[in-house]
Order: sequence, then structure tokens, then C-alpha cells
Amino acid sequence: MRLFVCSLFVMLPLLGQAPPAARLVSPEVRPDNRVTFRFRAPNAVKVTVNRAGNKPLEMQKDEQGVWTVTTDALEPDMYGYTFNVDGVGTIDPVNARVVPNLLGASSMVHVHGPSTLPWETNDVPRGTVHHHFFKSAVANDNRDMYVYTPANYNPKAKAAYPVLYLLHGFSDDASGWTAVGQAHVIFDNLIAQGKMKPMVVVMPLGYGTMEALKSQRDASVRARSFDGFRDSLLQEVIPQVEKTYHVSKDRTQRAIAGLSMGGAESLRVGLNYLDKFAWIGAFSSGGVPASFTETFPNLDSKANDKLKLLWIACGKDDGLFEANSKLDAALTERNIKHQWIVTPGAHTWPVWRRNLAEFAPLLFGQPKT
Amino acid sequence: MRLFVCSLFVMLPLLGQAPPAARLVSPEVRPDNRVTFRFRAPNAVKVTVNRAGNKPLEMQKDEQGVWTVTTDALEPDMYGYTFNVDGVGTIDPVNARVVPNLLGASSMVHVHGPSTLPWETNDVPRGTVHHHFFKSAVANDNRDMYVYTPANYNPKAKAAYPVLYLLHGFSDDASGWTAVGQAHVIFDNLIAQGKMKPMVVVMPLGYGTMEALKSQRDASVRARSFDGFRDSLLQEVIPQVEKTYHVSKDRTQRAIAGLSMGGAESLRVGLNYLDKFAWIGAFSSGGVPASFTETFPNLDSKANDKLKLLWIACGKDDGLFEANSKLDAALTERNIKHQWIVTPGAHTWPVWRRNLAEFAPLLFGQPKT
Repeated sequence: MRLFVCSLFVMLPLLGQAPPAARLVSPEVRPDNRVTFRFRAPNAVKVTVNRAGNKPLEMQKDEQGVWTVTTDALEPDMYGYTFNVDGVGTIDPVNARVVPNLLGASSMVHVHGPSTLPWETNDVPRGTVHHHFFKSAVANDNRDMYVYTPANYNPKAKAAYPVLYLLHGFSDDASGWTAVGQAHVIFDNLIAQGKMKPMVVVMPLGYGTMEALKSQRDASVRARSFDGFRDSLLQEVIPQVEKTYHVSKDRTQRAIAGLSMGGAESLRVGLNYLDKFAWIGAFSSGGVPASFTETFPNLDSKANDKLKLLWIACGKDDGLFEANSKLDAALTERNIKHQWIVTPGAHTWPVWRRNLAEFAPLLFGQPKT
Repeated sequence: MRLFVCSLFVMLPLLGQAPPAARLVSPEVRPDNRVTFRFRAPNAVKVTVNRAGNKPLEMQKDEQGVWTVTTDALEPDMYGYTFNVDGVGTIDPVNARVVPNLLGASSMVHVHGPSTLPWETNDVPRGTVHHHFFKSAVANDNRDMYVYTPANYNPKAKAAYPVLYLLHGFSDDASGWTAVGQAHVIFDNLIAQGKMKPMVVVMPLGYGTMEALKSQRDASVRARSFDGFRDSLLQEVIPQVEKTYHVSKDRTQRAIAGLSMGGAESLRVGLNYLDKFAWIGAFSSGGVPASFTETFPNLDSKANDKLKLLWIACGKDDGLFEANSKLDAALTERNIKHQWIVTPGAHTWPVWRRNLAEFAPLLFGQPKT
């Protein structure tokens, strides 16, 4: 007996919808690194593609109702983008690569470059990303965190691993640094090249209360969220990590860094808890509220004895560049040793991937080569 | 000196776009479990919301150009949906919960139910989901897999853990069972209730070649994808898992199960490799191509000595119900012991979450309680 069962791959798509007659390809990365975006919207009046940190590009409609535009050649990188259809933002519905974000997803296009770019996947030993779930007593919710362990991580190694706490920005979730930032790929590459010490990297959720997402203009919610984040980090995340992973408890083997909101959190936690952290990084740091002295009441040049590294970076085209320049000036005025790194770029992930690739090798002394 | 740095939370959204004037709320789950969907599209002619496995619901436009519809009360569950705007499918741009899928993302709405529902997060000990990356020699690509370890997983436990290989459906990626299926939450709950043995669950990528996604109608590509999947599972995934985790190598401690395409893979690998698997599950199985005897050349009632469980389930409203009924008949005709489970529902995740919650407790004998 021949039993015919419906062929495996001629399958209803997940939602039981018929696929569109001609399947659009979008984005299409051309050999010369120009990118063509396509969006089907026969009745729309105006459609643009908005690439993070860039001006919207107007698209043109063809007789099939497909809007198209081709960019100039782009520098190899991974770019976030959305379409704007008559004033309404949306992801690219035919692009499976979605950038997670709690205030609105976007799509991603990867313009591949040479394997020397830190975020390109290479045939090197790969680390693992562990997704942990826990009930936070501080925040009174169920939350998650991600932990990177390097290739060949050995829980019985003679020396405990150094540990970096790496914080995402406002509106990201705990997956931001891996799902968008490619942090695990960057670490794999740098470690394989002997440029970075094998370390454990912890990526917790950066909100002390999830209300912060809805009430970001409410100063009391912001303060409560920061305090809760700090308390959860110190009382819940770090103890859990130190129980689960073979990491050092020595402050000289502990770093904290982050982007945007996470940069501010790194400064506020790191500089106020130098008994716990010796290495601090702030990328495109979101603001330090109120005054320097209120925020860092005990911070003066005596901190230099404890600080192994205070690394502050910002892109020139970032709306926060001026604020970060002022932070540099305030630290200089107080004779607090730090590095002030000015890069090209705006408030976008391409800047933060490069920041991470530059910052991580500075941590915990040179790796043995 | 007071240093004012731009306030942390009054931040450019990720893409530097101005937020819309009035922030839409969509979906809104009402206390009586009706759900209101909203979509802003002032120029659209027709907008529907398409909930997986259901007929599209027409939406009505208000004077602000916002399209709205409210469902009847829904059974507590997690539902995938998309909007269709003048023939173009898209996710809900204001809903951060995106369902990953390689052929087109969708959005998800969670209608919360009692904590006894297996996919609801409870205050129970939580397992961990480990994301592994490796170069596949079989598929000649870089790929990933997820591994669940139960709460209090002990790599030095006296008895090695039993292991379930759990396979996603066509168009899903390796994250499907956790990101959409809530498999890790279901396991946490069942283990905490003493209904399921603590086990390691491996969720690999289900394609032997990624071409399968583009050429699903090409029989030779389908065959190559299946063969590659099988070879990668047996030669790469299982050895890697057995090296990394404290899992048993005894066939009676090894199970394979999956949904749709993954169900077919579970049958084809499991029933042809009874020296490796003793427990097999197929949920809404995508087809067994060609003939039963060609697909399972050595399968007859002697398999009953080796099979601890052959569990085949399908929803009555699934387009594959007839095909699965025939599979049941063919097995019955050959006196191959199996369970044939008919459930309500279509080809959707709500069915597969329930399948998993019913199947997992049957594995590896009763847990000690």
C-alpha cells in the first residue's frame, strides 16, 4: 500500500494565509553593497524607508503597487530600518530578521563585510549564551537575563573567570546585546584572536520597574526604575551569577558597561560602588540626571586609586554628544582619570558594536598570547 | 557646578523617529477576555486582523484613521496574528511581542488564564535555556540550537538525565519551541508539579539545508534537507549534546518529537533508528513523502519490542488531519503499537503547546514523587 500523506513542505504558512502571488525580496543587498528595499502597498500615498540614524528615503511605486528604493553603497554593517507608510511605521513584512525592542520592533539588513569585522561570524570556537529566568523580589516580576560563557569555558578552571556586566539601552530587552549587538559573536572573534581575555558576560534586564517603559517622562518612575535596577543587580543578579558560574568575586575582576540608558546605569552603579567594580564603560550614555555632585556624592580624584578604567565614548552625530562632552569636562575638572572616546556615528547599534569591540580588549589586563 | 545631561529616559527611540501623537494600544485584552486590535492606517481601504487558524476579522476605521475590531471572549491562550492592510500582511507595529518565523513574522497576544495552564509562568524553580552555536560540516553553514536544562540541573548527578530532541515546524527557526511554544515554561511547571521527569531538551535547527525555505516545492531539495537534518542530528547535534551535558546514551532514555515538519522528521528519524530512540512523538505531522514502505522500509510489528511510545496527535481542524488519520490506519494495519490522539484545533501553536504538555509527562516512566 502506498500511503500518500500531504507533502511536508507544501505547507500552510503559520497563519494559514495564502502567500502573495509574487514573493517580494526585501532587502536585497547587491554585490556593490547598495541595498534595495521593497514594500507592497498599492493604496499608499507615500512610503519611505527609515534607516537608523539616517534621513528617510522616499520610495517609488511601480504598476504592481510595490514601492522600491535603492540606497547608495553602504559600509558593511548591520542596519536597523523600518518603513513608514502614510505616517505609520512598520517592519519589513518579508524580512525574517526582526530587531526586538519593547517600544516597537524594526527590521535588520546585514551588509556583509570582510571577516575581520568584529561582528561577522567566523569559523572560530563559539561561546554559549545562557538564558536565565527568575522571580525578582526587588521588581516583583518574573524576568530574565543572558549570560555569555566563552568557548571551552571550564567550570573547574584553576583561575575564576573575570566578569563583565553589560547593559542594554532604553526600550531594549535583555536580548538586545546579543540579538542586535552581536556581542557573543564579537567576543568569540576577539577571544579567538587573542585580543580579549576569556570572560563571562552577564546581560541582565535594565529596568528596575517595567513601568519605566510607559512613564519615561515621570521623574519619580525614572528614579524608582534606576534604584530598582541597582538593587536587583547587586542583590539578585550578581549573587545568582556568582553561584552559577565560575567567576571571580574580586572587584578588579569585575566590570560594568552599557549603552545609552545602560551607560548611565554603568556610571551610576560603577562609580558609586567602586568597592565592587574596577572597570567601567559608558557608550553614548543617556543622561546623568540632576547634578554631578548629587549623582556621584563621593566621587573625587581618590577614585583613581580604585579605577582600572573609566571609558566614555560617544558618536559625533549623537544627540547626546554634548551631554557626554560635558561629562568628560566634569571628570577632567575633578582630575578623575578617564578615557574620552569620540567616534563617528549617531545613536545607533553600529556605533555600539564598534564600542564593544574596542572596549572589551581593554578589560582585565592583556590576555596571555 | 550643576551638570545637566539630557535626561535619561526622554530619549530618541532607537530609530530616531518621532513617536506618533497618540500612542495606540494594541492588542488590548479586556477583563472578559475579549481582545481589541488597533491599527493606524488613514489611507487604507480594507484592514483585517488574521488570527492563526481563524477567519480574518474586518476592522472599522474611525475619524483618526485608526482601524479597530474587538473579538468575542477568547479562551485563555497565546495567539499569533497579523494585520492585512489592502492585501499586505504585517505585524502589529505597536506590539513588542513578535513571533519569530523565517518566512514572515507575526505578532502575539497573550490572554492570561489560570496558573494551572501549562504555559503560564509560575513562581516555580526555573530551568535555563542555553543557546549554542556551531559550524555544521553536514550543512556547511553556521547554525544554532537551544538546550533546556531543568531547575537544579546537576552535572554531577548520580544518574544521567534522559534527553528529548524537540523539533520545530517548517518556517520556524531553532527558537520556535521556546519563543513561541513556551516549552521551557511548560517543562518548569510540569516538573515542579511532579508530572514530568527532569530531563534535558534539545531544540536544534530543523533544516538540512537552508535552501529548503526557498525551494519547498522542489522534491530534491526537500529530500536533501531531510537527509542533511538527519545526518546533522546524528553526527553533530547528539555527540555535541552528549559531550556538553550529563545525559544518558541509553536509547530508552532518548526521545524525539516535533510539530508539523518536525513531526515528520521525528517519525522518519525515530522509526528508522530505533537503536537510538525509544520514545517518538509527532504533533500535526507534516507529510511522510512517497510510500509508507519506502519511508519506513524495515518497520513492522517487531518494532513494538523497542518502542516505548509512539504518540501521534492532530487537531480535527488541521488541514493535515486526514493525512495523519491515514498514518494511524497504516500503523494499525501493521500492528505497530501507537497512540492516536485527536484533539480540537487547527495547525497552530495552541494545539502544540497542549500536545507538549500532554506528551512530556509520558516520557521515561513516571517521575518519582
